[in-house]
Amino acid sequence: MRVEILTIGTEILLGDIINTNSQYLSREMMLLGFDVYRHTTVGDNPERMKEAMTRALNESDLILATGGLGPTNDDLTKEIAMEILGQVGQVHEPSLRRLESYFKNPHAIEANMKQSIFPPTATVLDNDYGTAPGCILHADNGKRIVLLPGPPNEMKHIYESRLRPILEVEANSILVSRNVLTVGLGEWAMAEKVSDITQSQINPSVAPYAKPDGAYLRVTAKAKTRAEANSMIDQTIVHLNARLGDAIYGYDEDTLEKDILDRLIKKNASLSMAESITGGMVTSRLIDIPGASQVISESYVTYSDDAKHKTLNVSYETLEKHSAVSEQVCTEMLKGLRKLTKSDYCIATTGYAGPTGDRVGLVYIGVLCDEGIEIKKFQFNGDRERIRSRATRSALGLLREMLLR
Amino acid sequence: MRVEILTIGTEILLGDIINTNSQYLSREMMLLGFDVYRHTTVGDNPERMKEAMTRALNESDLILATGGLGPTNDDLTKEIAMEILGQVGQVHEPSLRRLESYFKNPHAIEANMKQSIFPPTATVLDNDYGTAPGCILHADNGKRIVLLPGPPNEMKHIYESRLRPILEVEANSILVSRNVLTVGLGEWAMAEKVSDITQSQINPSVAPYAKPDGAYLRVTAKAKTRAEANSMIDQTIVHLNARLGDAIYGYDEDTLEKDILDRLIKKNASLSMAESITGGMVTSRLIDIPGASQVISESYVTYSDDAKHKTLNVSYETLEKHSAVSEQVCTEMLKGLRKLTKSDYCIATTGYAGPTGDRVGLVYIGVLCDEGIEIKKFQFNGDRERIRSRATRSALGLLREMLLR
Repeated sequence: MRVEILTIGTEILLGDIINTNSQYLSREMMLLGFDVYRHTTVGDNPERMKEAMTRALNESDLILATGGLGPTNDDLTKEIAMEILGQVGQVHEPSLRRLESYFKNPHAIEANMKQSIFPPTATVLDNDYGTAPGCILHADNGKRIVLLPGPPNEMKHIYESRLRPILEVEANSILVSRNVLTVGLGEWAMAEKVSDITQSQINPSVAPYAKPDGAYLRVTAKAKTRAEANSMIDQTIVHLNARLGDAIYGYDEDTLEKDILDRLIKKNASLSMAESITGGMVTSRLIDIPGASQVISESYVTYSDDAKHKTLNVSYETLEKHSAVSEQVCTEMLKGLRKLTKSDYCIATTGYAGPTGDRVGLVYIGVLCDEGIEIKKFQFNGDRERIRSRATRSALGLLREMLLR
Repeated sequence: MRVEILTIGTEILLGDIINTNSQYLSREMMLLGFDVYRHTTVGDNPERMKEAMTRALNESDLILATGGLGPTNDDLTKEIAMEILGQVGQVHEPSLRRLESYFKNPHAIEANMKQSIFPPTATVLDNDYGTAPGCILHADNGKRIVLLPGPPNEMKHIYESRLRPILEVEANSILVSRNVLTVGLGEWAMAEKVSDITQSQINPSVAPYAKPDGAYLRVTAKAKTRAEANSMIDQTIVHLNARLGDAIYGYDEDTLEKDILDRLIKKNASLSMAESITGGMVTSRLIDIPGASQVISESYVTYSDDAKHKTLNVSYETLEKHSAVSEQVCTEMLKGLRKLTKSDYCIATTGYAGPTGDRVGLVYIGVLCDEGIEIKKFQFNGDRERIRSRATRSALGLLREMLLR
């Protein structure tokens, strides 16, 4: 199946918005095994729209057009597509009833009326997030023009719930992916543990990737149906779990913060932080998760030497002898924090965020709990923001390691 | 001038990357008063590239093409453009010398050699960020094909430093914009104070906007040259300053955090936070700015009632009588923090971030300094993340207000 993606909107040609619809639809076509031939964007100009649509219809089997389905006189995509196909619209009763239940005011219904007009042969794609339905217009030669609204949330919703199920039936096979998120292993170590699987297994395929917030595996299954693909992915994940076990903290949109908080809640354990280099970022990220108050009562940003001494009782002797960025100071921070908060789990961070100095990027991160103390030394690269962010991520990773012991 | 923007790369048709180049160049063309006729994207396929480029050359005066300038056999944009124009390439000595100074290894120079081949009539646009120079290819009929590398940082660099100055000379007039960033006023109040200017002044125009992190004015001047436009903007900003004064904290990429830190450093003043709802976010954002250690020594996240009592000496009576989210508790947090840290400026935040509960979004923010105490009550909308983020922004805004007294 050859596909052209046609985006319509003067605001795109003026650079007011980024054309994310083309990327989203391109990726979805790739997953269906359909070949995207070209992207075209034109403004809300009838001549150019007509020309672009005619040309797309000559060269491709399926045209996915987004934008220009609103109620105003500038919104002409549907009218022009009908003209090209020689089709005439009439009121689509179910769409009119949806409009009537959306707007109580008869003037508003009247003003939006054209959104309920479709050729009788069209497949109407209901829009639960807005008033402009999408549709599939069927040409006599079997080719199709699909019209979708421009706002990305409405477009994606209609695609996923209404259009994709139709296209999936026609695809020879479809690809479905799931990301398996890990922590505590670098990309290399993670890949190493599953290298025989990534190398030998073709369907589902397993491929390692690295993001700033951790390494992950993308499992991609090719199957006749989505259900079948998902079941194949489930089976592969059983194998990955056997290799990576606790290093896996979730899938797709899951967060490390939520995983940690859930584990602490389950243990009925409390947590507090003594943050120097991370300056409140560890605490803030955890408090962003609903339910954080069950676990976190208090935290301390001890940025200066004086604060480390005053709040956490780190000795000036240790600070002077080993400097604030040292295993010794990290240890005293943890012990002082434990004494102060009596939390089941304590985290301390100390390091150099830069931008200047010889030791920029050197960070010590420690966790103390009933099972003992663990301190790790890191050397991070990048700017101040990146160093602080990686230190935060590493603190969460070390905490999770201790939670799993 | 009619312009077509042509992006080349199979990775765009597969949905691997978002086409940000088209948006960037579209906006720049709009600022020059040039009319963008169409965006087209095709893969690294010689036939389709040739067809798209030929068509663009028929219909537009200027084609801006990005991508396909790399050293490999798949990178064919320049070769195809030369073929269409009937031009033959030869070694461009300055580009070869740049390659030679980039790569010491003769094999690498050889492998990248085609990046130094251009038709003798081409205008070569040096690339300081990579090995692929851009170029302007001149057709016999006066039309032009501009080739730019695909990586956005290289593309923008060449556009701004090499191509834009050339195009600006040809533009009848150019638009230059500067954003004037404000804090402490809502969009409406900001707009009200300058409404006569926004309504009467056409060039430069002044338009109010709102972003999640504050309201701003966009000043846009139309002039023959960039220097002239900038000077017109400077003059308008003098007027805006007279109206908005201290509410303006910066321009374009400036941050509120940096402005506050600079003011504190100038006053040689110290700052500490007692954060409940913001949970370390205020401290963390300030610590992200280099030099924060001159101002911030310590901060406290007092999330639970017990922590507010233990660390800040907030009385259990006040907590019970008024609840933790109250002006009274905010006041006691500030007084306790001042006693504990002796900081010149103290910030306290307390509120309900949700997601559940009747009072979600209610937030008290207070600042205490030698000049007194100021406490503000807010009711924010949105999810947990947004409420916490807006509370953080408001805390920084209130601190700045007190710094200006």
